[in-house]
Amino acid sequence: MTAQQPKPQPEVGPSRPAFAIWLGGTNEITRMFLAAGKVPGLINMAGGLPEPDTYPVKELAEIAERAVSKYPQDSLNYPPIEGLPDLRDRLAARFSNADLKLSRENVLVTSGGMQALDLIGKVLLNEGALIAAQSPTYLGAVDAWRPRRPSYRLFSPEKNDFDPVAALTGAQFAYTVPNFSNPTGRLVGLARRQELVDAAHQSGTWLVEDDPYGALYYDGTPLPRMITLSGAKQSGAIYDGPLVYMGTFSKEIAPGFRIGWVIASPEMIGALTIAKQGSDMCTSGLSQRVAVDALDAGLLERTLPVILDVYRHRRDALCAAMEEHLSQWFDWEKPVGGMFVWATAKNPAMDTDKLLSEALKAGVCVSPSSVFDPHGEDRRSIRINFTLNTPDRLAEGIRRLATAVKAIGLD
Amino acid sequence: MTAQQPKPQPEVGPSRPAFAIWLGGTNEITRMFLAAGKVPGLINMAGGLPEPDTYPVKELAEIAERAVSKYPQDSLNYPPIEGLPDLRDRLAARFSNADLKLSRENVLVTSGGMQALDLIGKVLLNEGALIAAQSPTYLGAVDAWRPRRPSYRLFSPEKNDFDPVAALTGAQFAYTVPNFSNPTGRLVGLARRQELVDAAHQSGTWLVEDDPYGALYYDGTPLPRMITLSGAKQSGAIYDGPLVYMGTFSKEIAPGFRIGWVIASPEMIGALTIAKQGSDMCTSGLSQRVAVDALDAGLLERTLPVILDVYRHRRDALCAAMEEHLSQWFDWEKPVGGMFVWATAKNPAMDTDKLLSEALKAGVCVSPSSVFDPHGEDRRSIRINFTLNTPDRLAEGIRRLATAVKAIGLD
Repeated sequence: MTAQQPKPQPEVGPSRPAFAIWLGGTNEITRMFLAAGKVPGLINMAGGLPEPDTYPVKELAEIAERAVSKYPQDSLNYPPIEGLPDLRDRLAARFSNADLKLSRENVLVTSGGMQALDLIGKVLLNEGALIAAQSPTYLGAVDAWRPRRPSYRLFSPEKNDFDPVAALTGAQFAYTVPNFSNPTGRLVGLARRQELVDAAHQSGTWLVEDDPYGALYYDGTPLPRMITLSGAKQSGAIYDGPLVYMGTFSKEIAPGFRIGWVIASPEMIGALTIAKQGSDMCTSGLSQRVAVDALDAGLLERTLPVILDVYRHRRDALCAAMEEHLSQWFDWEKPVGGMFVWATAKNPAMDTDKLLSEALKAGVCVSPSSVFDPHGEDRRSIRINFTLNTPDRLAEGIRRLATAVKAIGLD
Repeated sequence: MTAQQPKPQPEVGPSRPAFAIWLGGTNEITRMFLAAGKVPGLINMAGGLPEPDTYPVKELAEIAERAVSKYPQDSLNYPPIEGLPDLRDRLAARFSNADLKLSRENVLVTSGGMQALDLIGKVLLNEGALIAAQSPTYLGAVDAWRPRRPSYRLFSPEKNDFDPVAALTGAQFAYTVPNFSNPTGRLVGLARRQELVDAAHQSGTWLVEDDPYGALYYDGTPLPRMITLSGAKQSGAIYDGPLVYMGTFSKEIAPGFRIGWVIASPEMIGALTIAKQGSDMCTSGLSQRVAVDALDAGLLERTLPVILDVYRHRRDALCAAMEEHLSQWFDWEKPVGGMFVWATAKNPAMDTDKLLSEALKAGVCVSPSSVFDPHGEDRRSIRINFTLNTPDRLAEGIRRLATAVKAIGLD
């Protein structure tokens, strides 16, 4: 061994091989936010984190014990790449309805919703390929696809002159968050959903329906999923259309399990499975078995009303505080669900990257619009989260944000 | 809603966008094996699966319960991208020694060992970049890097004329499995380890030390890790050299948790962390907390002797059966550790892809050498696993394999 030898002086060695090109363009703001979130006293309204008090800790602890003791073959072995058959069956059943026939072959279990985005990029993007993306666009999706250095065509379904066929045609896939878009919190209405689905069938383009917030409707009746509208256009056997639906337990039960899923045609599930094999082989068997048993125990049905009450109250508190302190500078719509309010400055000269640095000095953190623009240009808006903080903290955060806006010195 | 509308006939729509180019070259043999493993009566000696009877189920069930009930903030929230600080600290302590100073900043927790390979490809490979790889090469690594369509320079450390500097210079990284290589089960000796480390320091090339089997020494004293040899060349602060060490709990406790790790310079850990953020955001908090508590409870120290006894006995049983039934056609070395015996046909005309199809007919599955050759050319060897089956099943499997060899009809 070498322990007895005197250590030589450090070599001045040759330089290391360069990192891959895409790393040069990485946006580190999410990580800055995670770090900022640990600063004492800072009010973090930037992330999309759930309220930990809503987690059903006692029941989950019992379920975790049982997942190992009763199902060691599921929880301790390598699960199949596609996921535990029990979990795939539960998810197929959950999302099936009169218009949408699903079987196990339509379901891939993923390691959180983020992995579903990574895998879609892996199977559909050659270097520089075209993505059609709902604008503004979820930062995590842009991060997931950056290594393939794609090009983007952005579209806004809420605009009057929106042309879905023109938006989709020629892209490898179109990316949408129809329920309470991250970052805007907006709903894509029923008519637009139908138009997007029709355009996907007409153009052949894969249509990704990313739906982490689909259970978080605080008012009104949930709109039909686009994959259901697509299923209605198909007769016969199990779903085989162009919709690629993504969901996650992170916003419904707890994010720490890292359980997400993709529901799509068996052809797409097959391609994603090959990609997953080379990404992480399979998702934690323990987490998957806990998910099955949590579903079977009715945990979703018991927990969701609690979550909805807490978040509805916080949304209302946030919007009331914004009305009081921010309405002279910003416009926003009160969202019907989700986790965020999107506020756009009345003054087009506003630079919310600058506002963020003032906000951090004032002790509050929000997300600037630049990170949700694949081209990095939009500087006029902010995304404000309302799920993590109590109503009092939300109000204090908005007061601090108003201080930061004043420091910017715009009318 | 659409449920009341009559369903139209299926459209004959336009074709979907093509999948990414790399999917055309995918090797599906691992998945074929997984499927074959479920055929009743088939003896699966192809995979690298642990013996489930060695899992400490009762203790792990208690630990899982406690991970949720006592540490919900760790197990149920989003963990940091890099991993739970407690787990990073435990791993830094475990691999530190007199020659190697490690801190939390040297450690990234990954979702199994496979993710570590994926992330290395993500941060170091532009399309077509050069990898120097120990030959034959682990199939999973080839799978992980295929989406970047790399080129390979293969090297064999056991050859007399091996030139480590020539092997490494100009490659983005060099890939090695020094302890009981998958597939060959061979050890890279101490002198060669030192030469590889010296070559990495001299050339600047990153040197990946993939070590899933490092705890599975059945005979003799473990050789020093290459990252330790590299640490001995550096004085002063925490490790900052060219070694990238990868490990996993899959072979030590149980694979279902999907907990692996990378130990490397903070610069490399930083790049891998950015890549991980866009891959799965973070690894299951529940699995990570279980890993911390399993380490703290001394589970590794208690479980490992049991595993070693079982596997040593099975290795001996396999080699005895091979001596009896296969020695007229194949040569092999009895491995000192790991999970595999690598057998090479005496007759260079042997085609082990063909042997596999005969073996499946005879009711046994082994891995042909073609899948461990990034160029797909090596047809002369087979990899035989000895950890999953009992000695009786191993002997029966080898008898079936001998039947398949006879059916091939080579001398």
